[in-house]
Amino acid sequence: MKKSIPVLIAVMFAAALPALSQEPKAPPPAKHKVVFELNAPAPSGWDQLFHNVENIQKIFGAEGVQVEVVFFGKGLTMLLKKNVEYADRLKEAAEKGVNLAACQNSMRAMNVKTEDLFPFASQVDSGVAELVRKQEAGWSYIKGGE
Amino acid sequence: MKKSIPVLIAVMFAAALPALSQEPKAPPPAKHKVVFELNAPAPSGWDQLFHNVENIQKIFGAEGVQVEVVFFGKGLTMLLKKNVEYADRLKEAAEKGVNLAACQNSMRAMNVKTEDLFPFASQVDSGVAELVRKQEAGWSYIKGGE
Amino acid sequence: MKKSIPVLIAVMFAAALPALSQEPKAPPPAKHKVVFELNAPAPSGWDQLFHNVENIQKIFGAEGVQVEVVFFGKGLTMLLKKNVEYADRLKEAAEKGVNLAACQNSMRAMNVKTEDLFPFASQVDSGVAELVRKQEAGWSYIKGGE
Repeated sequence: MKKSIPVLIAVMFAAALPALSQEPKAPPPAKHKVVFELNAPAPSGWDQLFHNVENIQKIFGAEGVQVEVVFFGKGLTMLLKKNVEYADRLKEAAEKGVNLAACQNSMRAMNVKTEDLFPFASQVDSGVAELVRKQEAGWSYIKGGE
Repeated sequence: MKKSIPVLIAVMFAAALPALSQEPKAPPPAKHKVVFELNAPAPSGWDQLFHNVENIQKIFGAEGVQVEVVFFGKGLTMLLKKNVEYADRLKEAAEKGVNLAACQNSMRAMNVKTEDLFPFASQVDSGVAELVRKQEAGWSYIKGGE
Repeated sequence: MKKSIPVLIAVMFAAALPALSQEPKAPPPAKHKVVFELNAPAPSGWDQLFHNVENIQKIFGAEGVQVEVVFFGKGLTMLLKKNVEYADRLKEAAEKGVNLAACQNSMRAMNVKTEDLFPFASQVDSGVAELVRKQEAGWSYIKGGE
Protein backbone atom coordinates (compact mmCIF):
# COMPACT_ATOMS: atom_id res chain seq x y z
CA MET A 1 0.00 0.00 0.00
CA LYS A 2 2.89 2.32 0.67
CA LYS A 3 3.79 2.12 -2.96
CA SER A 4 0.27 2.72 -4.09
CA ILE A 5 0.57 6.49 -3.91
CA PRO A 6 3.67 6.80 -6.05
CA VAL A 7 2.22 4.24 -8.41
CA LEU A 8 -0.96 6.25 -8.58
CA ILE A 9 1.00 9.41 -9.20
CA ALA A 10 3.10 7.64 -11.78
CA VAL A 11 -0.04 6.47 -13.52
CA MET A 12 -1.46 9.98 -13.43
CA PHE A 13 1.80 11.31 -14.75
CA ALA A 14 1.90 8.71 -17.49
CA ALA A 15 -1.68 9.56 -18.34
CA ALA A 16 -0.70 13.21 -18.62
CA LEU A 17 2.21 12.46 -20.92
CA PRO A 18 0.20 11.78 -24.05
CA ALA A 19 -1.50 15.12 -23.58
CA LEU A 20 1.90 16.71 -23.50
CA SER A 21 3.35 14.93 -26.49
CA GLN A 22 0.33 14.26 -28.62
CA GLU A 23 -0.32 16.78 -31.35
CA PRO A 24 -3.97 17.34 -32.25
CA LYS A 25 -4.85 15.33 -35.30
CA ALA A 26 -4.22 17.40 -38.38
CA PRO A 27 -7.41 18.08 -40.34
CA PRO A 28 -7.42 16.87 -43.93
CA PRO A 29 -5.60 19.44 -46.04
CA ALA A 30 -8.03 22.23 -46.89
CA LYS A 31 -8.55 22.77 -50.55
CA HIS A 32 -7.36 26.05 -51.88
CA LYS A 33 -10.29 28.08 -53.19
CA VAL A 34 -9.87 30.86 -55.72
CA VAL A 35 -12.43 33.09 -57.37
CA PHE A 36 -11.41 35.08 -60.42
CA GLU A 37 -13.23 38.14 -61.70
CA LEU A 38 -13.37 38.64 -65.44
CA ASN A 39 -14.84 42.02 -66.08
CA ALA A 40 -12.95 43.25 -69.10
CA PRO A 41 -13.53 43.23 -72.83
CA ALA A 42 -11.27 41.18 -75.08
CA PRO A 43 -8.39 40.88 -75.14
CA SER A 44 -7.50 42.23 -71.67
CA GLY A 45 -6.71 39.28 -69.52
CA TRP A 46 -8.65 36.79 -71.63
CA ASP A 47 -5.68 34.64 -72.61
CA GLN A 48 -4.02 35.17 -69.27
CA LEU A 49 -7.07 33.79 -67.47
CA PHE A 50 -6.32 30.35 -68.86
CA HIS A 51 -2.65 30.58 -67.97
CA ASN A 52 -3.58 31.60 -64.44
CA VAL A 53 -6.06 28.79 -63.94
CA GLU A 54 -3.69 26.21 -65.42
CA ASN A 55 -0.81 27.43 -63.29
CA ILE A 56 -2.87 27.23 -60.13
CA GLN A 57 -4.10 23.74 -60.96
CA LYS A 58 -0.53 22.69 -61.72
CA ILE A 59 0.89 24.13 -58.51
CA PHE A 60 -1.83 23.02 -56.11
CA GLY A 61 -2.88 19.90 -58.00
CA ALA A 62 -6.18 19.59 -59.83
CA GLU A 63 -7.74 18.04 -56.69
CA GLY A 64 -6.11 20.60 -54.44
CA VAL A 65 -7.81 23.72 -55.65
CA GLN A 66 -11.37 24.78 -56.39
CA VAL A 67 -11.64 27.50 -59.04
CA GLU A 68 -14.54 29.70 -60.03
CA VAL A 69 -14.48 32.45 -62.64
CA VAL A 70 -17.20 35.09 -62.43
CA PHE A 71 -17.94 36.81 -65.73
CA PHE A 72 -19.70 40.14 -65.71
CA GLY A 73 -19.81 43.47 -67.49
CA LYS A 74 -17.92 43.27 -70.76
CA GLY A 75 -16.29 40.07 -69.52
CA LEU A 76 -19.61 38.27 -69.96
CA THR A 77 -19.09 38.19 -73.72
CA MET A 78 -16.41 35.56 -73.20
CA LEU A 79 -19.12 33.05 -72.30
CA LEU A 80 -21.24 33.67 -75.40
CA LYS A 81 -21.55 30.74 -77.80
CA LYS A 82 -20.58 33.03 -80.63
CA ASN A 83 -17.19 33.52 -79.00
CA VAL A 84 -15.94 30.52 -80.95
CA GLU A 85 -12.29 31.47 -80.60
CA TYR A 86 -12.32 30.59 -76.91
CA ALA A 87 -14.84 27.72 -77.03
CA ASP A 88 -12.30 24.89 -76.78
CA ARG A 89 -10.28 26.40 -73.96
CA LEU A 90 -13.38 27.27 -71.94
CA LYS A 91 -14.82 23.78 -72.41
CA GLU A 92 -11.53 22.23 -71.34
CA ALA A 93 -11.46 24.39 -68.21
CA ALA A 94 -15.05 23.43 -67.36
CA GLU A 95 -14.18 19.76 -67.82
CA LYS A 96 -11.30 20.22 -65.39
CA GLY A 97 -13.77 21.40 -62.77
CA VAL A 98 -13.55 25.16 -63.18
CA ASN A 99 -16.93 26.77 -62.48
CA LEU A 100 -17.61 29.35 -65.20
CA ALA A 101 -20.33 31.59 -63.81
CA ALA A 102 -22.27 34.20 -65.79
CA CYS A 103 -23.78 37.16 -63.93
CA GLN A 104 -27.54 37.31 -64.45
CA ASN A 105 -27.57 41.07 -63.89
CA SER A 106 -25.18 41.49 -66.80
CA MET A 107 -27.21 39.01 -68.84
CA ARG A 108 -30.33 41.12 -68.39
CA ALA A 109 -28.48 44.36 -69.10
CA MET A 110 -26.99 42.91 -72.28
CA ASN A 111 -30.09 40.93 -73.28
CA VAL A 112 -28.22 37.64 -73.11
CA LYS A 113 -30.38 34.52 -72.74
CA THR A 114 -29.36 31.19 -71.27
CA GLU A 115 -29.33 29.67 -74.73
CA ASP A 116 -26.80 32.30 -75.84
CA LEU A 117 -24.27 30.97 -73.33
CA PHE A 118 -22.02 27.97 -73.74
CA PRO A 119 -23.88 24.98 -72.29
CA PHE A 120 -21.16 24.39 -69.70
CA ALA A 121 -21.59 27.88 -68.19
CA SER A 122 -23.33 28.27 -64.85
CA GLN A 123 -25.16 31.37 -63.62
CA VAL A 124 -25.14 33.51 -60.48
CA ASP A 125 -27.66 36.18 -59.52
CA SER A 126 -25.03 38.91 -59.29
CA GLY A 127 -21.37 38.70 -60.18
CA VAL A 128 -20.33 41.21 -57.54
CA ALA A 129 -22.45 39.61 -54.82
CA GLU A 130 -20.90 36.27 -55.76
CA LEU A 131 -17.39 37.71 -55.32
CA VAL A 132 -18.43 38.95 -51.89
CA ARG A 133 -19.98 35.64 -50.85
CA LYS A 134 -16.92 33.73 -51.93
CA GLN A 135 -14.55 36.02 -50.05
CA GLU A 136 -16.75 35.73 -46.97
CA ALA A 137 -16.44 31.96 -47.31
CA GLY A 138 -12.64 32.20 -47.30
CA TRP A 139 -11.93 32.11 -51.00
CA SER A 140 -9.00 34.11 -52.35
CA TYR A 141 -9.94 36.79 -54.84
CA ILE A 142 -7.99 37.54 -57.98
CA LYS A 143 -9.11 40.25 -60.35
CA GLY A 144 -8.32 39.19 -63.89
CA GLY A 145 -7.21 41.59 -66.54
CA GLU A 146 -4.20 43.81 -66.56
CA MET B 1 -63.54 20.91 -11.96
CA LYS B 2 -61.40 18.63 -9.81
CA LYS B 3 -58.93 18.35 -12.60
CA SER B 4 -58.88 22.01 -13.31
CA ILE B 5 -56.02 22.87 -10.95
CA PRO B 6 -53.55 20.25 -12.11
CA VAL B 7 -54.57 21.01 -15.67
CA LEU B 8 -53.99 24.68 -15.06
CA ILE B 9 -50.59 23.94 -13.58
CA ALA B 10 -49.74 21.68 -16.46
CA VAL B 11 -50.72 24.40 -18.89
CA MET B 12 -48.63 26.94 -17.00
CA PHE B 13 -45.72 24.53 -16.95
CA ALA B 14 -46.05 23.80 -20.62
CA ALA B 15 -46.15 27.51 -21.29
CA ALA B 16 -42.91 27.90 -19.34
CA LEU B 17 -41.15 25.15 -21.26
CA PRO B 18 -40.37 27.12 -24.36
CA ALA B 19 -38.71 29.73 -22.17
CA LEU B 20 -36.61 27.01 -20.60
CA SER B 21 -35.62 25.39 -23.86
CA GLN B 22 -35.28 28.62 -25.77
CA GLU B 23 -32.04 29.04 -27.60
CA PRO B 24 -30.11 32.20 -26.79
CA LYS B 25 -31.30 34.97 -29.03
CA ALA B 26 -29.48 34.87 -32.33
CA PRO B 27 -27.46 38.02 -32.93
CA PRO B 28 -28.76 40.20 -35.73
CA PRO B 29 -27.53 38.79 -39.03
CA ALA B 30 -24.04 40.03 -39.74
CA LYS B 31 -23.97 42.71 -42.35
CA HIS B 32 -22.06 42.03 -45.49
CA LYS B 33 -19.24 44.53 -45.83
CA VAL B 34 -17.73 45.49 -49.16
CA VAL B 35 -15.02 47.99 -50.00
CA PHE B 36 -14.60 49.05 -53.61
CA GLU B 37 -11.47 50.62 -55.05
CA LEU B 38 -11.90 53.24 -57.73
CA ASN B 39 -8.52 54.07 -59.08
CA ALA B 40 -9.15 54.65 -62.75
CA PRO B 41 -9.80 57.68 -64.93
CA ALA B 42 -13.19 58.03 -66.61
CA PRO B 43 -14.82 56.17 -68.09
CA SER B 44 -13.25 52.90 -66.92
CA GLY B 45 -15.60 51.39 -64.41
CA TRP B 46 -17.28 54.66 -63.50
CA ASP B 47 -20.75 53.72 -64.67
CA GLN B 48 -20.27 50.14 -63.59
CA LEU B 49 -19.52 51.25 -60.05
CA PHE B 50 -23.13 52.34 -59.62
CA HIS B 51 -24.48 49.15 -61.14
CA ASN B 52 -22.30 47.13 -58.79
CA VAL B 53 -23.34 49.02 -55.69
CA GLU B 54 -27.02 48.91 -56.66
CA ASN B 55 -26.84 45.20 -57.40
CA ILE B 56 -25.24 44.46 -54.07
CA GLN B 57 -27.81 46.53 -52.19
CA LYS B 58 -30.60 44.80 -54.10
CA ILE B 59 -29.25 41.30 -53.45
CA PHE B 60 -28.28 41.71 -49.80
CA GLY B 61 -30.89 44.35 -48.93
CA ALA B 62 -30.03 47.96 -48.21
CA GLU B 63 -29.79 47.15 -44.49
CA GLY B 64 -27.87 43.95 -45.14
CA VAL B 65 -24.71 45.39 -46.61
CA GLN B 66 -22.30 48.14 -45.72
CA VAL B 67 -20.54 49.66 -48.72
CA GLU B 68 -17.53 51.94 -48.94
CA VAL B 69 -15.90 53.21 -52.10
CA VAL B 70 -12.31 54.43 -51.84
CA PHE B 71 -11.32 56.93 -54.52
CA PHE B 72 -7.67 57.49 -55.24
CA GLY B 73 -5.27 58.20 -58.07
CA LYS B 74 -7.15 59.21 -61.18
CA GLY B 75 -10.32 57.85 -59.62
CA LEU B 76 -10.34 60.77 -57.19
CA THR B 77 -11.59 63.05 -59.95
CA MET B 78 -14.96 61.34 -59.72
CA LEU B 79 -15.55 63.07 -56.37
CA LEU B 80 -14.76 66.56 -57.61
CA LYS B 81 -17.67 69.00 -57.56
CA LYS B 82 -16.92 69.90 -61.13
CA ASN B 83 -17.74 66.33 -62.14
CA VAL B 84 -21.36 67.39 -62.60
CA GLU B 85 -22.22 64.46 -64.81
CA TYR B 86 -22.03 62.07 -61.88
CA ALA B 87 -23.27 64.40 -59.15
CA ASP B 88 -26.81 63.02 -58.91
CA ARG B 89 -25.82 59.38 -58.89
CA LEU B 90 -23.10 59.96 -56.31
CA LYS B 91 -25.45 61.90 -54.07
CA GLU B 92 -28.07 59.19 -54.33
CA ALA B 93 -25.51 56.54 -53.38
CA ALA B 94 -24.40 58.60 -50.39
CA GLU B 95 -27.99 59.01 -49.29
CA LYS B 96 -28.41 55.25 -49.46
CA GLY B 97 -25.57 54.88 -46.97
CA VAL B 98 -22.60 54.31 -49.27
CA ASN B 99 -19.45 55.85 -47.80
CA LEU B 100 -17.63 57.73 -50.56
CA ALA B 101 -14.09 58.22 -49.29
CA ALA B 102 -11.45 60.44 -50.87
CA CYS B 103 -7.78 59.60 -50.33
CA GLN B 104 -5.95 62.52 -48.72
CA ASN B 105 -2.65 61.47 -50.24
CA SER B 106 -4.17 61.77 -53.69
CA MET B 107 -5.78 65.06 -52.69
CA ARG B 108 -2.38 66.50 -51.77
CA ALA B 109 -0.73 65.11 -54.90
CA MET B 110 -3.46 66.58 -57.10
CA ASN B 111 -3.87 69.77 -55.09
CA VAL B 112 -7.50 69.01 -54.30
CA LYS B 113 -9.00 70.82 -51.31
CA THR B 114 -11.93 69.70 -49.19
CA GLU B 115 -14.07 72.41 -50.76
CA ASP B 116 -13.35 70.94 -54.19
CA LEU B 117 -15.07 67.71 -53.21
CA PHE B 118 -18.78 67.00 -53.18
CA PRO B 119 -20.06 67.83 -49.68
CA PHE B 120 -21.21 64.26 -49.11
CA ALA B 121 -17.70 62.85 -49.65
CA SER B 122 -15.70 61.63 -46.67
CA GLN B 123 -11.90 61.44 -46.43
CA VAL B 124 -9.33 58.83 -45.43
CA ASP B 125 -5.64 59.37 -44.76
CA SER B 126 -4.55 56.90 -47.42
CA GLY B 127 -6.70 55.03 -49.90
CA VAL B 128 -4.44 52.00 -49.96
CA ALA B 129 -4.09 51.86 -46.18
CA GLU B 130 -7.88 52.08 -45.96
CA LEU B 131 -8.26 49.09 -48.29
CA VAL B 132 -5.85 47.17 -46.06
CA ARG B 133 -7.63 48.12 -42.85
CA LYS B 134 -10.98 47.13 -44.26
CA GLN B 135 -9.72 43.76 -45.45
CA GLU B 136 -8.15 43.17 -42.05
CA ALA B 137 -11.57 43.90 -40.52
CA GLY B 138 -13.18 41.24 -42.70
CA TRP B 139 -14.52 43.36 -45.52
CA SER B 140 -14.57 41.92 -49.02
CA TYR B 141 -12.47 43.81 -51.54
CA ILE B 142 -13.57 44.52 -55.09
CA LYS B 143 -11.35 46.44 -57.43
CA GLY B 144 -13.49 48.58 -59.69
CA GLY B 145 -12.68 49.23 -63.31
CA GLU B 146 -12.24 46.70 -66.05
CA MET C 1 13.64 7.20 1.31
CA LYS C 2 10.29 5.61 0.88
CA LYS C 3 8.82 9.01 0.45
CA SER C 4 11.49 10.15 -1.89
CA ILE C 5 10.00 8.41 -4.87
CA PRO C 6 6.52 9.88 -4.54
CA VAL C 7 8.05 13.24 -3.73
CA LEU C 8 10.24 13.00 -6.79
CA ILE C 9 7.26 12.03 -8.90
CA ALA C 10 5.19 14.79 -7.37
CA VAL C 11 7.94 17.27 -8.16
CA MET C 12 8.11 15.97 -11.71
CA PHE C 13 4.37 16.19 -11.96
CA ALA C 14 4.34 19.71 -10.59
CA ALA C 15 7.08 20.60 -13.01
CA ALA C 16 4.92 19.29 -15.80
CA LEU C 17 1.91 21.32 -14.73
CA PRO C 18 3.12 24.65 -16.02
CA ALA C 19 3.67 23.00 -19.38
CA LEU C 20 0.07 21.90 -19.31
CA SER C 21 -1.42 25.17 -18.20
CA GLN C 22 0.96 27.61 -19.78
CA GLU C 23 -0.41 29.44 -22.76
CA PRO C 24 2.00 29.72 -25.65
CA LYS C 25 3.71 33.07 -25.54
CA ALA C 26 1.70 35.63 -27.44
CA PRO C 27 3.40 36.48 -30.72
CA PRO C 28 4.50 40.06 -31.20
CA PRO C 29 1.62 42.19 -32.50
CA ALA C 30 0.84 41.11 -36.03
CA LYS C 31 2.29 43.35 -38.65
CA HIS C 32 0.06 44.56 -41.38
CA LYS C 33 0.76 42.43 -44.42
CA VAL C 34 0.00 43.55 -47.93
CA VAL C 35 0.58 41.81 -51.24
CA PHE C 36 0.37 43.84 -54.42
CA GLU C 37 -0.17 42.40 -57.87
CA LEU C 38 1.59 44.09 -60.76
CA ASN C 39 0.30 42.53 -63.92
CA ALA C 40 0.18 45.44 -66.32
CA PRO C 41 2.50 46.85 -68.97
CA ALA C 42 4.01 50.28 -68.45
CA PRO C 43 2.87 52.78 -67.60
CA SER C 44 -0.36 51.52 -66.00
CA GLY C 45 0.13 51.65 -62.27
CA TRP C 46 3.93 51.55 -62.43
CA ASP C 47 4.51 54.94 -60.85
CA GLN C 48 1.54 54.53 -58.57
CA LEU C 49 3.00 51.33 -57.16
CA PHE C 50 5.75 53.31 -55.49
CA HIS C 51 3.33 55.90 -54.14
CA ASN C 52 1.17 53.13 -52.73
CA VAL C 53 4.04 51.32 -51.05
CA GLU C 54 5.47 54.56 -49.64
CA ASN C 55 2.08 55.64 -48.34
CA ILE C 56 1.52 52.34 -46.61
CA GLN C 57 4.96 52.40 -45.02
CA LYS C 58 4.37 55.97 -43.90
CA ILE C 59 0.94 55.24 -42.42
CA PHE C 60 1.74 51.95 -40.72
CA GLY C 61 5.42 52.62 -40.05
CA ALA C 62 8.23 50.87 -41.88
CA GLU C 63 8.37 48.23 -39.13
CA GLY C 64 4.59 47.96 -38.96
CA VAL C 65 3.91 46.56 -42.39
CA GLN C 66 5.28 43.77 -44.52
CA VAL C 67 4.96 44.38 -48.24
CA GLU C 68 5.38 42.04 -51.18
CA VAL C 69 4.87 42.89 -54.83
CA VAL C 70 4.25 40.02 -57.21
CA PHE C 71 5.20 40.74 -60.81
CA PHE C 72 3.74 38.61 -63.56
CA GLY C 73 2.48 38.82 -67.13
CA LYS C 74 3.45 42.11 -68.69
CA GLY C 75 4.21 43.45 -65.23
CA LEU C 76 7.28 41.22 -65.08
CA THR C 77 9.13 43.59 -67.41
CA MET C 78 9.36 46.07 -64.56
CA LEU C 79 11.92 43.81 -62.87
CA LEU C 80 14.18 43.48 -65.92
CA LYS C 81 17.65 45.01 -65.53
CA LYS C 82 17.15 46.81 -68.79
CA ASN C 83 14.30 48.76 -67.19
CA VAL C 84 16.81 51.36 -66.10
CA GLU C 85 14.20 54.05 -65.62
CA TYR C 86 12.82 52.32 -62.54
CA ALA C 87 16.08 50.82 -61.23
CA ASP C 88 16.66 53.34 -58.46
CA ARG C 89 13.13 53.32 -57.12
CA LEU C 90 12.94 49.54 -57.15
CA LYS C 91 16.29 49.23 -55.39
CA GLU C 92 15.21 51.72 -52.76
CA ALA C 93 11.98 49.80 -52.16
CA ALA C 94 13.93 46.54 -51.81
CA GLU C 95 16.28 48.19 -49.33
CA LYS C 96 13.26 49.27 -47.31
CA GLY C 97 12.22 45.65 -47.00
CA VAL C 98 9.75 45.32 -49.85
CA ASN C 99 9.89 41.83 -51.36
CA LEU C 100 9.89 42.16 -55.15
CA ALA C 101 8.92 38.74 -56.45
CA ALA C 102 9.13 37.63 -60.08
CA CYS C 103 6.79 34.87 -61.29
CA GLN C 104 8.77 31.94 -62.68
CA ASN C 105 5.90 30.92 -64.95
CA SER C 106 6.03 34.32 -66.59
CA MET C 107 9.83 34.12 -66.72
CA ARG C 108 9.63 30.88 -68.68
CA ALA C 109 6.89 32.20 -70.96
CA MET C 110 8.89 35.34 -71.71
CA ASN C 111 12.28 33.62 -71.76
CA VAL C 112 13.58 35.71 -68.88
CA LYS C 113 16.56 34.30 -66.99
CA THR C 114 17.57 35.03 -63.42
CA GLU C 115 20.48 37.12 -64.68
CA ASP C 116 18.04 39.29 -66.62
CA LEU C 117 16.40 40.40 -63.38
CA PHE C 118 17.59 43.07 -60.99
CA PRO C 119 19.78 41.34 -58.39
CA PHE C 120 17.46 42.40 -55.56
CA ALA C 121 14.46 40.62 -57.11
CA SER C 122 13.22 37.38 -55.57
CA GLN C 123 11.29 34.65 -57.37
CA VAL C 124 8.11 32.66 -56.76
CA ASP C 125 6.95 29.55 -58.61
CA SER C 126 3.69 31.13 -59.71
CA GLY C 127 2.54 34.69 -59.26
CA VAL C 128 -1.12 33.75 -58.98
CA ALA C 129 -0.47 30.88 -56.57
CA GLU C 130 1.59 33.29 -54.48
CA LEU C 131 -1.31 35.75 -54.32
CA VAL C 132 -3.53 32.90 -53.14
CA ARG C 133 -1.07 31.68 -50.52
CA LYS C 134 -0.65 35.16 -49.15
CA GLN C 135 -4.39 35.77 -48.90
CA GLU C 136 -4.79 32.42 -47.18
CA ALA C 137 -2.17 33.56 -44.69
CA GLY C 138 -4.16 36.69 -43.92
CA TRP C 139 -2.43 39.18 -46.16
CA SER C 140 -4.49 41.95 -47.73
CA TYR C 141 -4.54 41.92 -51.52
CA ILE C 142 -4.30 45.01 -53.67
CA LYS C 143 -4.34 44.76 -57.41
CA GLY C 144 -2.07 47.42 -58.85
CA GLY C 145 -2.82 49.28 -62.04
CA GLU C 146 -5.83 51.35 -62.84
